Amino acid sequence: MRAVTRRTSTESADSVTPGRGLSRRGLLGLAGASVAGIGLGVAGDRVALAAATPGAASASTVYPFYGSHQAGIVTPAQDRLHFAAFDVSAGVTRTELIELLQDWTVAAAAMSAGQDVGEYGATSGPYDAPPEDTGEAQGLATAGLTITFGFGPTLFKTADGEDRFGIIGRRPADLTPLPHFPGDDLDTGRSDGDLCIQACSNDPQVAVHAIRNLSRIAFGRAALRWSQLGFGRTSSTSTTQATPRNLFGFKDGTANIKAEEPDVVADQVWVSAADGPAWLAGGSYLVARRIRMTIETWDRTSLREQEAVFGRTKGAGAPLSGGTEFSEPDFALAGREDQPLIGAAAHVRLAHPTQNQGAKLLRRGYNFVDGNDDLGRLEAGLFFISFQRSPAQFTTVQLNLAKHDALNEYIRHVGSALFAVPAGIADGSYVGATLFA
Amino acid sequence: MRAVTRRTSTESADSVTPGRGLSRRGLLGLAGASVAGIGLGVAGDRVALAAATPGAASASTVYPFYGSHQAGIVTPAQDRLHFAAFDVSAGVTRTELIELLQDWTVAAAAMSAGQDVGEYGATSGPYDAPPEDTGEAQGLATAGLTITFGFGPTLFKTADGEDRFGIIGRRPADLTPLPHFPGDDLDTGRSDGDLCIQACSNDPQVAVHAIRNLSRIAFGRAALRWSQLGFGRTSSTSTTQATPRNLFGFKDGTANIKAEEPDVVADQVWVSAADGPAWLAGGSYLVARRIRMTIETWDRTSLREQEAVFGRTKGAGAPLSGGTEFSEPDFALAGREDQPLIGAAAHVRLAHPTQNQGAKLLRRGYNFVDGNDDLGRLEAGLFFISFQRSPAQFTTVQLNLAKHDALNEYIRHVGSALFAVPAGIADGSYVGATLFA
Repeated sequence: MRAVTRRTSTESADSVTPGRGLSRRGLLGLAGASVAGIGLGVAGDRVALAAATPGAASASTVYPFYGSHQAGIVTPAQDRLHFAAFDVSAGVTRTELIELLQDWTVAAAAMSAGQDVGEYGATSGPYDAPPEDTGEAQGLATAGLTITFGFGPTLFKTADGEDRFGIIGRRPADLTPLPHFPGDDLDTGRSDGDLCIQACSNDPQVAVHAIRNLSRIAFGRAALRWSQLGFGRTSSTSTTQATPRNLFGFKDGTANIKAEEPDVVADQVWVSAADGPAWLAGGSYLVARRIRMTIETWDRTSLREQEAVFGRTKGAGAPLSGGTEFSEPDFALAGREDQPLIGAAAHVRLAHPTQNQGAKLLRRGYNFVDGNDDLGRLEAGLFFISFQRSPAQFTTVQLNLAKHDALNEYIRHVGSALFAVPAGIADGSYVGATLFA
Repeated sequence: MRAVTRRTSTESADSVTPGRGLSRRGLLGLAGASVAGIGLGVAGDRVALAAATPGAASASTVYPFYGSHQAGIVTPAQDRLHFAAFDVSAGVTRTELIELLQDWTVAAAAMSAGQDVGEYGATSGPYDAPPEDTGEAQGLATAGLTITFGFGPTLFKTADGEDRFGIIGRRPADLTPLPHFPGDDLDTGRSDGDLCIQACSNDPQVAVHAIRNLSRIAFGRAALRWSQLGFGRTSSTSTTQATPRNLFGFKDGTANIKAEEPDVVADQVWVSAADGPAWLAGGSYLVARRIRMTIETWDRTSLREQEAVFGRTKGAGAPLSGGTEFSEPDFALAGREDQPLIGAAAHVRLAHPTQNQGAKLLRRGYNFVDGNDDLGRLEAGLFFISFQRSPAQFTTVQLNLAKHDALNEYIRHVGSALFAVPAGIADGSYVGATLFA
């Protein structure tokens, strides 16, 4: 257990260097009134217990929480996801919002390091108070847990004509709701949000534990708006990873941005100081799209049609113009009757940077199955996540896809959200500090 | 690829030794009319690709599908679950039901061995036909996949006064709907079913692939009624496994039946020939209960209350009467004011065999989080699964719990189902063959 310092509740959240403990309000969220005033910090190193964890090879992986960029973006995509969007509760002040972000930072740093939330953690502390940590991750290794925070366009909106958090003037010009794309069939209950948290780990219980504890800390200050679990990553963000398959059975995203391409990452993922606003420099934009797949229909289409839709082979994932998975597609190469081997409406063509003014996205999505609908069809699909320097990169590609992609016959976009992802956090600071500086 | 034999569609399902291929009807389910008559069998050995799979240590595990008991019962509980209940479609005949069970058997055996469904699998075969396998498990190891089938009480009911499958007289006397327990708040859309399939694996994508392909094979013959994913096992069924934690943060089920106790397994899990009916000998009964946890309320209760509710410590999971996790609870031992250290309403007391006429259950449940409800509370809980020689074992324990368990304040049973699980399958036969013999 590390020594911790704690900020007292009487200090102004604006003026102090944030300490390592939860605010009094955060404490109340955890504990209820009965325990107000008890100091909380960072506690309870978890023991890696290989026998109880999946992904044993990667169970011991710990990614640094603090750094120049937030973790969970160029970090090699973990296998499991729990994503949550929150709305700030009515009446919450600027000071209280900052305290929430500080509390989240402290707790996220602890969990990312494999520690329990709070000074006493899950199993000790005052016996008549609720445990500070909910406890279901005890004995589990972090399995590469990363926690990534984002701010939605609505965080910068007025409440009743008031600039509730004093940040309206600091809204990034690009942080506006995404346009309506052809075919969009969005459920507002699965879209948008003032704040978001992406928790990724190779152990789903560790990701669930993170979102649950951060939701708990937010009690009374921000409420869960929607959430999504993903069981299988659909992208590689490192050349060390094999390309996984989506629920159509295809390798997609072979040409994803990889961490090992620092120039591309700098050019396509991170907001630069020149892009503005200054507070977002080193950050990124996160797009989330819940894409329902009508897999029963897909499963009845021929192998020929399936491969034509993607423009790749179903086995190796090679472009239909030939070669292997990582061969560059040749969109001009023609076959029978002078038709291009990769059709005009093929997904691989329409999503390719050459068809989108050079725009690339760092994709980090997950497969999901959320039970089934009333007709007995699996409620399955892709929870698409991408990070990009500007939302325009996504909009360019998605507009192209929404208009022309052969895949549209088999998918439906049912949820959508955009968040500005602040830069990484310096040890001792908190996520988004530059926004409130 | 193994050589396969295929039963032709003109043979009577009742009279032939089932072959290794899918029936013509199963073929139609996979392929649509365009491909009728093309032979399907077992194909496409999957390559274990450690880099793409979680649970690398166990990714290469393959459990035998054929045997004297079905796999997935005393098999060491895998980390992930996809469970599905089906209703047989209207108009389906006895012969067609048998064909479905034969087709499921062939496909389940293939997938359990790490092979694709069908003769050609996911990526080859007639180019103008749908692939026989949906393909998302390509490149993934089986990660210990087991597939377990069960028959619900409604399978033995008449349709319009007719004995549709000619098995009403063979219904096990014990296979009747579970009684209504105090506090039950059941959703019929998450309860019951004519048939069930439990798919467990250390890789969720492999479990999802199994249920999806078996649902697809059932097309036109049985439709998905409800389904449930579980991300974390909550029980150990082998002494080689550490006891995992439920979403209350506790180790529960420490005293679960373990595979290494063959006498207990024989006494408590397997239906004996003397129990009757003869066709179910070597089988078991599966109880599934979807138990919603009100975790937000739980998270606000004191450590004292939480430990009193379970009768165990939250850290080590030791009984409050002392010792370590595996110490036998001393229900008589009293503490302050002569009160028993393990209270009268403590979960560990009420669930203990000594309080239930010796009844034990082989528990094999999973944690679930299915997004959140409209109030922003995580839709979280325990998908309880138990196997027992007689449903009376479950009923005895659950009646005791439903009446007295202190945990009831924090849980709600919202789904319920009972299935008879036939004995294991001999290579060349099919699941439930003895029922139709």
